[in-house]
Amino acid sequence: MSGRHGEEGLGLVTTQRAVVATPEDPLRLARGGVLEHVEVAYETYGTLSPARDNVVLVAHALTGHAHAAGHHGDPTRRGWWDSMIGPGRPVDTDRFFVVSPNLLGGCQGTTGPSSPDPRTGRPYGPDFPELETTDLVAVHRRLLDVLGIGPVHAGVGGSMGGMQVLQWLADEPGRVHRAVLVAATARLTAENMGFSAVAREAITSDPDFHGGRYAEHGVIPARGLKVARMLAHLTYVSAEGLEAKYGREGIESYLQAQGDSFLERFDANTYLVLCRLLDRFDPFADPAFAARVASGGPEVLALSFTSDWRFGTAHSAYLVERLAAAGLPVEHVELASAWGHDSFLLDPPGYHARVAAFLARAVG
Amino acid sequence: MSGRHGEEGLGLVTTQRAVVATPEDPLRLARGGVLEHVEVAYETYGTLSPARDNVVLVAHALTGHAHAAGHHGDPTRRGWWDSMIGPGRPVDTDRFFVVSPNLLGGCQGTTGPSSPDPRTGRPYGPDFPELETTDLVAVHRRLLDVLGIGPVHAGVGGSMGGMQVLQWLADEPGRVHRAVLVAATARLTAENMGFSAVAREAITSDPDFHGGRYAEHGVIPARGLKVARMLAHLTYVSAEGLEAKYGREGIESYLQAQGDSFLERFDANTYLVLCRLLDRFDPFADPAFAARVASGGPEVLALSFTSDWRFGTAHSAYLVERLAAAGLPVEHVELASAWGHDSFLLDPPGYHARVAAFLARAVG
Repeated sequence: MSGRHGEEGLGLVTTQRAVVATPEDPLRLARGGVLEHVEVAYETYGTLSPARDNVVLVAHALTGHAHAAGHHGDPTRRGWWDSMIGPGRPVDTDRFFVVSPNLLGGCQGTTGPSSPDPRTGRPYGPDFPELETTDLVAVHRRLLDVLGIGPVHAGVGGSMGGMQVLQWLADEPGRVHRAVLVAATARLTAENMGFSAVAREAITSDPDFHGGRYAEHGVIPARGLKVARMLAHLTYVSAEGLEAKYGREGIESYLQAQGDSFLERFDANTYLVLCRLLDRFDPFADPAFAARVASGGPEVLALSFTSDWRFGTAHSAYLVERLAAAGLPVEHVELASAWGHDSFLLDPPGYHARVAAFLARAVG
Repeated sequence: MSGRHGEEGLGLVTTQRAVVATPEDPLRLARGGVLEHVEVAYETYGTLSPARDNVVLVAHALTGHAHAAGHHGDPTRRGWWDSMIGPGRPVDTDRFFVVSPNLLGGCQGTTGPSSPDPRTGRPYGPDFPELETTDLVAVHRRLLDVLGIGPVHAGVGGSMGGMQVLQWLADEPGRVHRAVLVAATARLTAENMGFSAVAREAITSDPDFHGGRYAEHGVIPARGLKVARMLAHLTYVSAEGLEAKYGREGIESYLQAQGDSFLERFDANTYLVLCRLLDRFDPFADPAFAARVASGGPEVLALSFTSDWRFGTAHSAYLVERLAAAGLPVEHVELASAWGHDSFLLDPPGYHARVAAFLARAVG
């Protein structure tokens, strides 16, 4: 996928780190845990305006990371949302200052289960505290504070990234002026949770899982993690997309390769913590949630894709309806795409233009 | 699901066995293997007419078995298709003589990977030969020969059972006068094969799999088999069905229970042999296949269900279209049902009545 105007995209970028919680200023978590040391890995693209009013916050999905755009040395290996972010692209780095952090509980630079527990010096592993989406937002709010950023022009996220942006709107009403929620959900279905349960079973029943203490045994639950990733991929792509891209002959080796490459970059305990958080995510169960979002008066664009059977149009329609009931009109567009849930990472017709137009509007 | 007219259903039934291949009359398999001893487990219901013209052959799905109707001692635990088969039910045992065999390669009475290899006295395990659907049909043709049955009034099967009935029509044109193919397919999609690949990965990567020689180690690949079954169940039920039946709270324990109970009754090598056979099934790739079916002039009814995302209406439409192109008109009815692929085991509106009416027609 190339940029809309054929630009080259961003060049070399680097991942930075910030400390956002310390023993003097610990992070108290929604479910009761406390983290006395939290680091955040993040990247920024573009230039912060003198008025500090051109910030776009990008929130990544379950297995994403801070490296959303540009490259780390090899120009052919680009960040996960390079088609969306860059000069002249929908999240236009000629205009916006983009902040892209890794999430709390992650395994790619931000504090998570594979980070050392300050009390023991060893990885937290299964002792990492349970998280809610509001904790992820709290860490990124602290990051923006550290960076000296107040109001946010827009929050943009796909899938679980969209869920974080939605949570932002309630947790600090008015700070994020616009939100783009792509292929997001406010509540997993029983089927979504079922696939999650199978993936968790594969990981936790792997003899190398050791109750989450695999690091202490010098192993990883590779078999289970591979099965989990192969399965997840099937839910990210539509049947029609699988047929067109891989076909009957190619599907097995494609899934095998996806599963194998995942092992090199992802931590099983992170997967479990985030999957449990997703299973519990149901913010509209709190009657005050929608009203808090509405009180900030954000402009919200929800986008969904026709062939997405993970968080398809019904998911977006549900959150749009809940917000509308609280008096906040939300623009919802369903886009035609054959690529299933993964469409949010690609460039189906109309998608990038919609995002570009929405972000380009003057701040209200 | 009770019978259509509120009958009690069949009473006590027993599983019988027949030997259908011997060293003197071995079974030569489509892919080159030879089996010198084949036993078939089967049940029969109803009475064979003096003219031997009232036979209905029932073919079961991937994990089914010969015990399709009635009970084995506990009247509350019924065969897997008890709602379909019995006195006054669509496959009416007051009228028809029903033969329900376990399939070749199975693990519930018919010769398969867990049976002793006559050459060694130990279970075949991974040395069991590769099978094609035509081999499964060959074994059941031999069974009917042993039972003294010539023409078959109807073959009835759901899912993989429907695939076997379709193969029957080509392998012995004219012998099966009518065929009911429920939620069947003539060709798996890449997505179907993807789910199969994940299930196989879970089984074969289980350390207790031992390359298929788990019996020699006194273990079973329980972790992998459980994950495979949990996953399969998700593909058998629609999202809407999962929501209605189990909901967000119940889905994980439901899948766990399904996975656990599977371990007691199913063999991993059988699962693998049959999954590979399903992956390869593509009979219309042979241009002569449809013509062979048509030459027998069978009446064919294909049924599909709206919410079936495993072998849904597109699968039935494909096989109907291929048969029609060969000059054999096929009746295809899509039935509304919320229960996904599993609908073929249940009683959505109109389903049983359709089957009953089709079977009740006079033999052409």
